Order: sequence, then structure tokens, then C-alpha cells
Amino acid sequence: MYLFYAPELDTNDCFLNEEESRHCVKVLRLQKDDLIEIIDGKGSFYRAKIVSPDAKKARFSILQTQQDFGKRNHYLHIAVAPTKNIERLEWFIEKATEIGIDEITPILCQHSERKIVNHERLNKVITSATKQSVKAYHPKLNQLTALSSLIKIQTEVQKWIAHCADAEKVSIKEALAPQKKYLILIGPEGDFSPQEIAVALKSGFQAITLGTSRLRTETAALEACFEVNFLNRL
Amino acid sequence: MYLFYAPELDTNDCFLNEEESRHCVKVLRLQKDDLIEIIDGKGSFYRAKIVSPDAKKARFSILQTQQDFGKRNHYLHIAVAPTKNIERLEWFIEKATEIGIDEITPILCQHSERKIVNHERLNKVITSATKQSVKAYHPKLNQLTALSSLIKIQTEVQKWIAHCADAEKVSIKEALAPQKKYLILIGPEGDFSPQEIAVALKSGFQAITLGTSRLRTETAALEACFEVNFLNRL
Repeated sequence: MYLFYAPELDTNDCFLNEEESRHCVKVLRLQKDDLIEIIDGKGSFYRAKIVSPDAKKARFSILQTQQDFGKRNHYLHIAVAPTKNIERLEWFIEKATEIGIDEITPILCQHSERKIVNHERLNKVITSATKQSVKAYHPKLNQLTALSSLIKIQTEVQKWIAHCADAEKVSIKEALAPQKKYLILIGPEGDFSPQEIAVALKSGFQAITLGTSRLRTETAALEACFEVNFLNRL
Repeated sequence: MYLFYAPELDTNDCFLNEEESRHCVKVLRLQKDDLIEIIDGKGSFYRAKIVSPDAKKARFSILQTQQDFGKRNHYLHIAVAPTKNIERLEWFIEKATEIGIDEITPILCQHSERKIVNHERLNKVITSATKQSVKAYHPKLNQLTALSSLIKIQTEVQKWIAHCADAEKVSIKEALAPQKKYLILIGPEGDFSPQEIAVALKSGFQAITLGTSRLRTETAALEACFEVNFLNRL
């Protein structure tokens, strides 16, 4: 069954956007009455039937709706410094989407080697992984944000910073209260600066360890994603 | 500090092999009396000093030795069908080496789309990740093996098969006895065949689930690697 992404879906007037319509009609050559599946990225999963296979605006009618499809019992936001080799960040984004993540913020740190990212391209990686792993929730990708701005966010979340400097740290297992909102900061290849760590701790972030292995930025971010999902499954 | 890999190290006559010597002397331009670190891939970690910076056979003397450096409390063997896009398998191999794995076997299954792998290239990915994450143990990479041969292996291990077909399954958390040897089978994009699953179950493999997300081959393999390491850290 083919799955399409319709983020602006109006259930009173159902059609695919131009990109998905083209894929549906030109690439997959689907025809009238063919069955398809649709996610809106906000938790709804639809089974539908093509009504008019227009390559610019393919219309369909909904046969069946599932709300809160695959809804998780927690909310995970990971803020990570983009890697010098952008493919490594893209890998993290793809894998985190498969495993389970709600929000990703690329952050700009003092030791960041990469200071720009292509937001549209990264968001496409998310969309592709969302469809591939049949998730009805499309993770939110924020614009590149200065760490200093992000740290100021005051919300009811468990906030952690995974840095490599010697310090007292707890594991996520020790720190995690299940079924909550979590925000985890993952630093660049050169780690967070001592000043950044100090400001984060002062702002209520707790220092965490991800085990004894020396992990690359994108591996550390994925390990954190694994742990939060795993601990919320227990 | 620069780290080198010396798998054939004889502590009575210490030198780097040709590739590492070239890297040491030609690329990094290290000189006599410069300090280096060395792993032998079998658990020994050395601090050493360059004695003769020969670009084909750089000699060094050992200053300090640590045995069983970073030794894990368990043994993890993952057998995984190579992905159609080999980069995805390479990514798994790199990440698993960072997180912790002892043995990897690429397996040939009925639904395998990829029937050959470049063993030398995959082993280089392991060596690079071993050095990058400063591990003294170099994971063992076996040759591409038919699943039917691998299944016959009779050793004192917990043996699991992660397949996608509807069946009674347990989570690794439920099945895992800590600090043991584990063998986990991860199938190709098209999953194991019903026949392969039946033979595996008959041979003492237990069917496991890796959660409710639909995971790609390489993500499933990494999730299994993560879970085994995480559960042995508890």
C-alpha cells in the first residue's frame, strides 16, 4: 500500500499537494479507485481511494480514519549541534524519526564548526523517514537556534545536557520520570564550552552521561533518543 | 594524542605496520620521542614513545600498558543481512562499534537483495570506528555466511531472531539474562522467509520484538545493539 503525506489536509476537500500528486500519478501511475494511505503528520492516519488522478492535484475520498495513530506516551525534544559532515546529522534525523522523536532543534554553540544548515533538506529527510516508518506524527524541525536562546526556554520539561567534561552526572535511567516532556542538549564535535555548561546548569539543565563509550555527536544524540524511548516502554 | 592500531603487536619488537607507519610519519609528521597511544584490538591499550619515525616501519617503545581496557561484561554477536544500499550496513557497523559489539556476521537470506559484500572495506569501517571511539577491542567481522549455516552454530548463547511476521514474541528486556553471550539475527529488507523463521525457532532461537516502530534493517540491528548494551549497564 502506498503512503502519502498531506500536512494541510482538509477532510472536507481531500487532495494531495503538487509534489505528492505528481509522485502518485506520474511515478506510481496510480489510477481512479486505487487504494492509498495518508498521514497528516499531526496524528491522523487515513485509508482512502483515489477519486481523480490529477498529476497536480490528485483528489481522494477517505474510507477510514484513525486518530492518534501510534501516539507515544512522552514528548522528546533533542537539540543538537549540526555535525561538520552534514550527512551525519541527516543520519541522526532519519534514525531518530524511525525510533521516535517529537522535536529537533539544530543549535549553534561556541565550538560549532558548522554554522548553517539547509532547513528544507533536513525537513525532507524527516518527511521521508516518517513515511517510510509509517508514522502519523511528523517531528517538528526548528530553525538553527543559538544555544543561549534555547537555554532560556522555560517549560515544564526535564532538561538535560550531555557534555563530555569531568563532572558529576547521572544516567538518563536515574533522571527520567516516565511519560513526561524531555529536552536534551547534544554538543558539537568539540563539546560544549565550560561557559555554556555553566549557563545550562544554572538554567536548570542536569548533566547526564550516556555510558562510558566515547560517542560521536550524532551517535550520542541517537543513544539519548534510544534511551528515552526505551525507558518509556518499560 | 594520536591513536594507532597494531593488531600484530609483539611487545618485544614494537613497530607499526606499513599503513599506520605512513599515517604516523607522512601524514601526522610525528617525530622521535613524540608520544602516541596504541591499541592491539585484543584489549590492550598502550602509551608509547616513537623511537624511530620510519615511514614504512615506525618503531616505538611502550611506556605504559593497560590490559582489558574497556572490557564489557557481555559478548554480543549480531548477524545481519546486508542492506541493498551498502552505506546503511556501513553506518550500522560504525555505530555498533561505537556503542559496543563483539562480532558481526553479514548473512545471506532467501530475501536478500544484496548477495556480496566487500569484507575488507567493512573491516576498515570497524577499524576506523574502533580508533575513533578509543576502544581496545576490535569487533570481529565474519565472512558473508548463509543463514542456514549460521543457525547450526551450537554455543552457549542466548539466541534471538528479530522478524516482522505476526507471532508470539518477547522483548529483549524480558528475554535477556545479564552478562551472557548473545546472538541476534536481523533480516533483510523483505524480512526472513516463513521457512527461515521456522528453522531458526526449531534451532533454539527465540522470536523478539524491538518495539512497535517499523524499523529499517540497519536501525533494527542498532536498536538491538543498544538494548543489549543498555540492559547490561543496569
